[in-house]
Amino acid sequence: MAQGISANRCFKALRFGETGSKLHPPDLYDMNAAWPRLGSSNMVDTFSYDALYSEKSVDTPLNPGLHAKYDFAVAYPAPETLPLDGLIQSLQTAVDSDSTKVLAELAYYPHQLGALELREYTAEKLRTDRGFTVSPEEIALTNGSGEALGLVIQALTNPGDVVLAEEFVYMGTTAQLRRFGADIRGVAMDEGGIIPDALDEQITALTAAGEKPKYLYTIPEHQNPMGSTISAERRKAILDIAHKHGMPILEDDCYVDLRYKGEVQPAFRALDDSGIVVYVASYSKLLAPGLRLGYFTASPELMRRALSFKLGSGPNQFAAVAIEGYLKNNLDAHRDNFNPMLEAKCNAMVAALEEHFGPAGATWSVPEGGCYVWLTMPEGSDIASIRDKVFEQGVGYVAGTNFEADASGRIGHNNARLCFAFESVEKNTEGIALLAQLFKQHGAM
Amino acid sequence: MAQGISANRCFKALRFGETGSKLHPPDLYDMNAAWPRLGSSNMVDTFSYDALYSEKSVDTPLNPGLHAKYDFAVAYPAPETLPLDGLIQSLQTAVDSDSTKVLAELAYYPHQLGALELREYTAEKLRTDRGFTVSPEEIALTNGSGEALGLVIQALTNPGDVVLAEEFVYMGTTAQLRRFGADIRGVAMDEGGIIPDALDEQITALTAAGEKPKYLYTIPEHQNPMGSTISAERRKAILDIAHKHGMPILEDDCYVDLRYKGEVQPAFRALDDSGIVVYVASYSKLLAPGLRLGYFTASPELMRRALSFKLGSGPNQFAAVAIEGYLKNNLDAHRDNFNPMLEAKCNAMVAALEEHFGPAGATWSVPEGGCYVWLTMPEGSDIASIRDKVFEQGVGYVAGTNFEADASGRIGHNNARLCFAFESVEKNTEGIALLAQLFKQHGAM
Repeated sequence: MAQGISANRCFKALRFGETGSKLHPPDLYDMNAAWPRLGSSNMVDTFSYDALYSEKSVDTPLNPGLHAKYDFAVAYPAPETLPLDGLIQSLQTAVDSDSTKVLAELAYYPHQLGALELREYTAEKLRTDRGFTVSPEEIALTNGSGEALGLVIQALTNPGDVVLAEEFVYMGTTAQLRRFGADIRGVAMDEGGIIPDALDEQITALTAAGEKPKYLYTIPEHQNPMGSTISAERRKAILDIAHKHGMPILEDDCYVDLRYKGEVQPAFRALDDSGIVVYVASYSKLLAPGLRLGYFTASPELMRRALSFKLGSGPNQFAAVAIEGYLKNNLDAHRDNFNPMLEAKCNAMVAALEEHFGPAGATWSVPEGGCYVWLTMPEGSDIASIRDKVFEQGVGYVAGTNFEADASGRIGHNNARLCFAFESVEKNTEGIALLAQLFKQHGAM
Repeated sequence: MAQGISANRCFKALRFGETGSKLHPPDLYDMNAAWPRLGSSNMVDTFSYDALYSEKSVDTPLNPGLHAKYDFAVAYPAPETLPLDGLIQSLQTAVDSDSTKVLAELAYYPHQLGALELREYTAEKLRTDRGFTVSPEEIALTNGSGEALGLVIQALTNPGDVVLAEEFVYMGTTAQLRRFGADIRGVAMDEGGIIPDALDEQITALTAAGEKPKYLYTIPEHQNPMGSTISAERRKAILDIAHKHGMPILEDDCYVDLRYKGEVQPAFRALDDSGIVVYVASYSKLLAPGLRLGYFTASPELMRRALSFKLGSGPNQFAAVAIEGYLKNNLDAHRDNFNPMLEAKCNAMVAALEEHFGPAGATWSVPEGGCYVWLTMPEGSDIASIRDKVFEQGVGYVAGTNFEADASGRIGHNNARLCFAFESVEKNTEGIALLAQLFKQHGAM
């Protein structure tokens, strides 16, 4: 019976309809797993933990890992674009050339900062790609950028602290911010990202109200979900505002390698050496999410405090050896091959949007890189409430409401994030056509 | 100037003498990294975070990664014993046989439970090796067992909760327990591990005093640091006590594969299907710590609550593919080759202890597996206070005080954990001779 109860809890928690909730972004979908699957177990589950769970713990359903036929709800590039053979070859080469060194990498618990060679490579990449210089000791490799963000958030956030973020922003970060008690407020944006004057006024008003923001979280390059990039000029203005108010900037630069058009903008960190900028990035989008390798750099004491929240030691050395070996020889070639594919996919999606959504008065962002187009339906159109129906009918997207920074439910009902990077050019074209048809069917356009 | 201050903080924090502290177990040493190294940086570090750090954050020095000439302070096997070529070959084979599948593994964010294939393999391994049946959905892969322990601890621990553990126990777990507010009490042990009657009396007394223990953490097989194994009979008695008091058992089985002598004892989990046992284990000791792959299984709701504390998604897929591919074909062969090496190293250390420490009235454990011998010097001998001097003179060990569960400083001054698995047979022999010489020199024997 107790088992039955658990099973029900489980299945209930995993009902399809719940998978769009803020805590379970489709970003985390995984094709390979469905939970729970039928599987034998000798667990009878008669011991009750009801009085034992910690106050902070929440019974949170696992991700069922469902994909729509046309999956624009994911947050990563297509499998076939990954340099898997190259990564494995690099690992083999590293072993052949100096197996003792590779053995040493794997034989020990990783330093809290992660594998030295990849930190050295990352320092060089930041110098050449992003225009700022940090030593390998100022870089910490993490289990994806998600861990990096979680560590920094814990080092800077007390329950109730006000934290600023773009008004629509990555739900994985807002979920972590909320978990650690942040009171998130959205900052006004336009096609160019955060609006400096609006930011300044907001901080002044909040400070006057005794709610001075602790820090600003931003994805300045190819923002998730809006696809916008903040210009160098605006970044300088935002930095001035940050200094004026003594407010650090948590810069999430995880899409910077995925630019196929236009000019890369300087990182906030490259424009400021004072320590006010905490810089987080990742190899997940460039190479493979499954590698789980992100990193961050910040001023020494903040790094030590952030790293003290780690569970266990540094990230996987196996992937670190492969990534360092591959990128040191293939970064440019990989980007030169990878990014034009992204551009073709983005163009296909944008063309389909023009054809099928333009006449209905919808608008969308046209990003210069990254993975996302941000769709805006006319005011009054609610595409959040029909998301599950449309998903079941073959098209996946993430409703704008999932990205609302302050979770007030005020905005985003007529918005959707569409990932153009995962499906093929053809499926992007077909999927958008079907999406328009389904929106019409459900009265959303 | 601010930079100077940070640098000083940093160097000060990393002074050699601090590396033996509870928060920085030599277990986490890494040969490949030293912090801080000289490295250029354009950080000027003039922005002050002093008013911004969270109340929970602590400025915690990073591990400098120092190794003594004879390093008995580490907690892992020797690099040359690792099946690195086999792991890479398995990865290559997986790609050659079904690259689409491997690509899919790497292309997506791992499911919160981790790679399905390795969970399926792990379920089968638990069934055959440990005698209990769980479905792959009841197994969560984690970034080492350290993450698994941290997640479960967070799901069960409120600040101030009393938690029981062996009176000397792995410092990495006690550090996490303290971080999440546990009030750890040590349980009396003998050569056979936890003494059931003492446990029962202690729980009864604590409960009467309004301090009912929340759960018991134990390493029943080849315990760290004492090397002891709890017999099946004692495990059954401990389970009866756990049920009597409604107290879960957090079983850390990470050394079970490293048995070279005697009979493996049934896991607590294999003796009880009620859900009262949370089972945590790891592939780190068997294959390579740098792979960072551990796992746990518990009743469904507890698993969901524990997993809700993850930062980011599941663990590295790259290592998961290699481990699953390697172990499904080579587990027995690897253990048959690996464990006799461990036994020879243990025998060499024990023989050297008999020769050099026996006459002085010291005693030591003679484990049937794992990595550690527990040395007990005569009462009054303080080998904790001379640890740093002896380390500088060439022999590393971890003083018993670092393993004291309740950190009261009462016990452990005359104890040391000696890892026999890392150095060679010859170095174990030489190092123990030198250790005796240094103890005499410093008046400890």
